[in-house]
Amino acid sequence: MTKTRIEAFSDGVIAIIITIMVLELKIPHGSELADLFELWPVFISYVLSFAFVGIYWANHHHLLHTVRQINSRLIWANLTLLFFLSIIPFTTGWMGENHFENIPVAVYALNLLMSAVSYFILQQVIMADMGHSNSMIDALNKQKQKGIISLMLYVIAIPCALFYPVISAVLFAIVSILWVIPDKNIEKALKET
Amino acid sequence: MTKTRIEAFSDGVIAIIITIMVLELKIPHGSELADLFELWPVFISYVLSFAFVGIYWANHHHLLHTVRQINSRLIWANLTLLFFLSIIPFTTGWMGENHFENIPVAVYALNLLMSAVSYFILQQVIMADMGHSNSMIDALNKQKQKGIISLMLYVIAIPCALFYPVISAVLFAIVSILWVIPDKNIEKALKET
Amino acid sequence: MTKTRIEAFSDGVIAIIITIMVLELKIPHGSELADLFELWPVFISYVLSFAFVGIYWANHHHLLHTVRQINSRLIWANLTLLFFLSIIPFTTGWMGENHFENIPVAVYALNLLMSAVSYFILQQVIMADMGHSNSMIDALNKQKQKGIISLMLYVIAIPCALFYPVISAVLFAIVSILWVIPDKNIEKALKET
Amino acid sequence: MTKTRIEAFSDGVIAIIITIMVLELKIPHGSELADLFELWPVFISYVLSFAFVGIYWANHHHLLHTVRQINSRLIWANLTLLFFLSIIPFTTGWMGENHFENIPVAVYALNLLMSAVSYFILQQVIMADMGHSNSMIDALNKQKQKGIISLMLYVIAIPCALFYPVISAVLFAIVSILWVIPDKNIEKALKET
Repeated sequence: MTKTRIEAFSDGVIAIIITIMVLELKIPHGSELADLFELWPVFISYVLSFAFVGIYWANHHHLLHTVRQINSRLIWANLTLLFFLSIIPFTTGWMGENHFENIPVAVYALNLLMSAVSYFILQQVIMADMGHSNSMIDALNKQKQKGIISLMLYVIAIPCALFYPVISAVLFAIVSILWVIPDKNIEKALKET
Repeated sequence: MTKTRIEAFSDGVIAIIITIMVLELKIPHGSELADLFELWPVFISYVLSFAFVGIYWANHHHLLHTVRQINSRLIWANLTLLFFLSIIPFTTGWMGENHFENIPVAVYALNLLMSAVSYFILQQVIMADMGHSNSMIDALNKQKQKGIISLMLYVIAIPCALFYPVISAVLFAIVSILWVIPDKNIEKALKET
Repeated sequence: MTKTRIEAFSDGVIAIIITIMVLELKIPHGSELADLFELWPVFISYVLSFAFVGIYWANHHHLLHTVRQINSRLIWANLTLLFFLSIIPFTTGWMGENHFENIPVAVYALNLLMSAVSYFILQQVIMADMGHSNSMIDALNKQKQKGIISLMLYVIAIPCALFYPVISAVLFAIVSILWVIPDKNIEKALKET
Repeated sequence: MTKTRIEAFSDGVIAIIITIMVLELKIPHGSELADLFELWPVFISYVLSFAFVGIYWANHHHLLHTVRQINSRLIWANLTLLFFLSIIPFTTGWMGENHFENIPVAVYALNLLMSAVSYFILQQVIMADMGHSNSMIDALNKQKQKGIISLMLYVIAIPCALFYPVISAVLFAIVSILWVIPDKNIEKALKET
């Protein structure tokens, strides 16, 4: 019952984050296609962040599904994740408006890194409270591997951005592809329970 | 249980999309009726998009109602639909602020087309997972016909907008009327189950 | 089950409407109390609209509670109500920024009138589908009386605003007091069922 | 059942409040780290308010969990709390943009005070309707003690801000630490029931 509410609140915050980003797509004054095309870096950033936040939602959805009991630590780990996700619209907009320049891309990578770290902590908090169900722990451990790989790629992406922001962008794309099919194992584990 | 959460998230995103559009109605500085009437194209666009997003919500509501099991494909098909819907406030604002000029109307039509295509894909993904209930498949097949007609009207509306945006507007109105009573068949099929 | 979703969507839209209004409270550049006090008409409008939207939420909550079955007419009556409520942030802002001048107050009253009319229609749609429970119909009929009185006061408030906006403001206050304790009868009727 | 909806609405409003604050983080035009660092007071205010609103959500979540029956008084006490929370994005932005100057910090403290008072009233309303469960009342009484201490600290923080805003900031931090682990007693009481 309590779980429902933490899910509802997280859904609400993530839904607002994912939608509020579109407000950075400032409406151009002209009515030509050229006026629209000037927005391409903002638009690309929006697509990228929409994918990332969407991935977080899908994984968060699966992760919380495995929770049996809510406690304070879980609530605060979850709020920390939501905090770093809530900054994504800001870093996305900064990166887009500056046409993927070095510092904004590095800050964006740092934002993704902090989100990944807090997701990782949330996962640890949840796994610590789970003792019994073995197949579930196996599934979450596999997710943890993906989490660690993502963390490492983000750590590489930050210095990269200072010299070759394009490589950082490729690393972001690799991470997102890595996560797009996130749940096979958890789905299987849930069925087995 | 999982279905509840995908519904809650979609409801959240669609609720924000439909409400955020009102932020494009910039408050006029003067206090005369004339100051208000200057906003008519933005207001008309708002009404139109409110109707379209409302239609999507109502249909999405019926469509997800038929789902038995959530999987990754469904989650991503749903996120794609939400992505194209999330751009509607932007294209609506652009069309309104430029008084229904050619290019903005064409881009708006393209946005509606992409939303319709992703709704169509979501419907296919859901129907592929449904084997048994025959009356439900019949009902969704009838909806698919409406979907295909809408797609064709949007495809016509895009080039039309470049020459006679008024015709595109009429086509939008026809599509919205087509969908306003969306669910008779699904409602019936649900009752039969 | 379907009812849950129409409630969730309405809650989402009303929650966004009630919160989005605070964005009209533009942050003053100075840091003196005088800078803050300049915002008083915007702040008063915000308080008033927060109360009205809150009243609608509370009543909507009770009204939908009585619903047994969802159909298309109910969905569209509900979307119409949400549409007129969604314009309240705009009319509120216009009234506040123009220090309660005649036309903006009249337009605000018109917005409240249209919201009340669509609430009234929604109530009719819901009562038409209810046959059995007598105490519930009695309770809703009493609410209808309040609804009709409110409608009449709004109708009076519109022309009033053109000459004495203060009287309109008093009428708004009377309506809001009328509704603050909205549910005694429905609560009783629900318990009897 | 009705409780679910008051929770959903509150979750929605609090989720929007917590997320909307990020819109005050205006995207800087330059792309240097220096451009970003100029935002530090706005960012610090954001972090502080995110923590406060998060604390309110977590406590509100526990408090409503103890409710058995919804009535009008509870609905209005809850709306009053949501009203004062909804102003936090505004007072946060004002404090941040003015680099924690005296008046804005005092107004921010006043906003927190009013929120705490209305939370206190909501708690009283809920406790008045609870007669039976003793361990629950004990737990809520302990929370009330924390509430009263917070109220006093806010009352001190308001005049402090006019002379030493730094002390007010320290008081804010003390209050937030006081509340971060909010629910041990209620959790225990809920289990005992």
